Amino acid sequence: MSGETERLTADDLREVWPVLDAEDRVLGFRQLDRTEAEDFFLELSPRSQSIVVAGVPAKERRSWIRLLEPDDAADLLQEVEPGERSGLMSLLDEPTRIEVSALLAYAEDAAGGLMSPRFTRVRAGMTVEEAIRYLRRQARENPETLYYVYVLDAEQRLRGVVSVRELFSAAADRRVEEVMEREVISVPETMDQEAVARLIASHDLMAVPVVDPEGRMRGIVTVDDIVDVVEEEATEDIQKLGGMEALDHPYLQTGVFAMVKKRAGWLAALFLGEMLTASVMGRYEGAVASAVVLALFIPLIISSGGNSGSQATTLVIRAMALGEVRLRDWWRVARREVAAGLVLGAVLSIIGFVRIILWQGLFGTYGEHFLRLGFTVSLSLLGVVLWGTVSGSMLPFLISRLGFDPASASAPFVATLVDVVGLIIYFTLARLLLTGALL
Amino acid sequence: MSGETERLTADDLREVWPVLDAEDRVLGFRQLDRTEAEDFFLELSPRSQSIVVAGVPAKERRSWIRLLEPDDAADLLQEVEPGERSGLMSLLDEPTRIEVSALLAYAEDAAGGLMSPRFTRVRAGMTVEEAIRYLRRQARENPETLYYVYVLDAEQRLRGVVSVRELFSAAADRRVEEVMEREVISVPETMDQEAVARLIASHDLMAVPVVDPEGRMRGIVTVDDIVDVVEEEATEDIQKLGGMEALDHPYLQTGVFAMVKKRAGWLAALFLGEMLTASVMGRYEGAVASAVVLALFIPLIISSGGNSGSQATTLVIRAMALGEVRLRDWWRVARREVAAGLVLGAVLSIIGFVRIILWQGLFGTYGEHFLRLGFTVSLSLLGVVLWGTVSGSMLPFLISRLGFDPASASAPFVATLVDVVGLIIYFTLARLLLTGALL
Repeated sequence: MSGETERLTADDLREVWPVLDAEDRVLGFRQLDRTEAEDFFLELSPRSQSIVVAGVPAKERRSWIRLLEPDDAADLLQEVEPGERSGLMSLLDEPTRIEVSALLAYAEDAAGGLMSPRFTRVRAGMTVEEAIRYLRRQARENPETLYYVYVLDAEQRLRGVVSVRELFSAAADRRVEEVMEREVISVPETMDQEAVARLIASHDLMAVPVVDPEGRMRGIVTVDDIVDVVEEEATEDIQKLGGMEALDHPYLQTGVFAMVKKRAGWLAALFLGEMLTASVMGRYEGAVASAVVLALFIPLIISSGGNSGSQATTLVIRAMALGEVRLRDWWRVARREVAAGLVLGAVLSIIGFVRIILWQGLFGTYGEHFLRLGFTVSLSLLGVVLWGTVSGSMLPFLISRLGFDPASASAPFVATLVDVVGLIIYFTLARLLLTGALL
Repeated sequence: MSGETERLTADDLREVWPVLDAEDRVLGFRQLDRTEAEDFFLELSPRSQSIVVAGVPAKERRSWIRLLEPDDAADLLQEVEPGERSGLMSLLDEPTRIEVSALLAYAEDAAGGLMSPRFTRVRAGMTVEEAIRYLRRQARENPETLYYVYVLDAEQRLRGVVSVRELFSAAADRRVEEVMEREVISVPETMDQEAVARLIASHDLMAVPVVDPEGRMRGIVTVDDIVDVVEEEATEDIQKLGGMEALDHPYLQTGVFAMVKKRAGWLAALFLGEMLTASVMGRYEGAVASAVVLALFIPLIISSGGNSGSQATTLVIRAMALGEVRLRDWWRVARREVAAGLVLGAVLSIIGFVRIILWQGLFGTYGEHFLRLGFTVSLSLLGVVLWGTVSGSMLPFLISRLGFDPASASAPFVATLVDVVGLIIYFTLARLLLTGALL
């Protein structure tokens, strides 16, 4: 900012918004002029909107919350404490309040919780000309954007759909039922938002109608909401793959204590699992005592298993999330990962062997039995990497078969499994190859 | 399938599509009846479309490729070998061919490469009634869905925008310029697709106009394409975080060899980095020789550092990708992660200490100096976890400051850094606390 005091614009505020705390956000927001503030308010996330509504003086609250469509108002209300909800609900006008209460009854992450109850409807018997005239009348009251026009019967059952473009290009005197598409893709109210997102994305739809069990149309889910869903679900999966619970809010807006809670649980679980390595190591204490050189390669070997396991788990879990791999594909995946594991293991095996020969030549690090040691490390790497890819790729199938979310449970299990089995592979091979030499 | 031979439906094919190879896909596709096949073709990914077009007899190819909008045809052409491109181009009709060539000149992942050159345009001086009549005429030729209507001047410069709904609800005799929004959010042709996606998502737009440096409107990017971009970018980031290069195609459609190539590079790089651990361990060979018990906790300590580092890296990289954290926020992040690292480290520290006391009480595992050993392990855990969170959260900033992609470079560096420094912390503390006892 320059020396003179300048008025804060929406662009300035947008720029710094993510890093401001709640109080500063409200302060900044209240400096905008009304028109700018309205546009800015509408583009905020439900959580940010709830911060603004909570922060402005009580008498202004009504005007802000009334700016929102019923589905957006419902999203905002999901963000506030249950105790404050009814106070805010009472600020809405009667018809919106009824729509919002209906929406709040749905699970937040189901089609019903995502839909807008406002959509454009016509009757099958209208002519195209009548339908367009009717739409123009409806547009004055109905504030949702116009995507598709839905054809409903007297019982509100969905009979067909026609896009505005198709309606425009049809001859004025044809009937709607002659130009509509009868096979409408629709979703039930209870469908999970991820499945709705997948459906909209794969069919390149702009919106999908939501129908109740009796076939009555209840609302539409539009593609712009789907962008948020796809982003949100990817973030959750990424955080779970990183070995923690998914955060509820953006990183910088999550309190340090809340964030530590999300991380401590899994970190402790991983730690308890990894304690097994100490027990396993205890069984080989004698081997380490007689050949301390074996200890040198422990971190290298278990980290190689861990890395190859994390590649395989990540690939399979993402492919599952995208619907590219299903449970019954496990055998195809297993065959591929065995092949991949053998090649990758061979690569590391060779590098490891060369490293030992080279260091022996240069520094004489490993003594007279360096060749046997080289073979032990090399073969261990092959075994550990193969085990990493196979267990890393198969565990997500097992976990998802047992009914758990593969994204959250796989990482810790793979880590422990690979480290523990990796140590067993290494010390077993050491016993076989080094007995009589170092052991 | 039942005993009788049934006709293959699009739904059947959709179900098995992801796991079929190219040949079976074409075979299946050719069994659909024409109407079903057309719908099915249009919902396929550009890559699948290219497989179908390559697989059908040469004389049918024209009819399939002509089904596509110019932007979708351009996407398909991106998927085929450069040598086959001109043959397929010649099958397009003249105006589409010109549009497609123009689109192919743009980078695939820029706004220009993503846009459709077909959009609805009107003049500012028309009345609302004239504009609607004009749109109905245009709809017959223009096959794109109608989102927004763009107001262009004689030089094709973008002057305003009006939604179909606003046009519908406006009085018939008002001029377009009176009802249009003059402040149009637009993007340059070269803008990266991730930035376009972020813009569309944050403003909840259905489409955004693409303008050239002279301010002339060239096309629109629609939100349905953005869903694919968001999904694709998330997949790339997830795969990079898993410690490999992003795959170009879905997991099961990637050949085993191509997949191994994407994984071997990073796995080898990680392995070379991890070799440092063997060198570091070499420096402490004497310590391990005199106190073999120290070796038992090596896997536990370095994996704890790795896990806390991976949590921190994952969080920061995803927050950066979503624009929630910018480079200049590094200090805020550092402060949060130091706090988180201290708490998380303390938690593991206590669990580790209790474990050693407990095992000592139950099995007498660790001998007379178990208390000193307990303190060494505990303090090492605190140090390693703190180091993991701090280096894991700061490396993405450093890497992105140096101009590299934080998603792909962070994981390996964090792993190596945490393991190497973790060992140094552990053995340094062991020297301080155990000299005179075990050492």
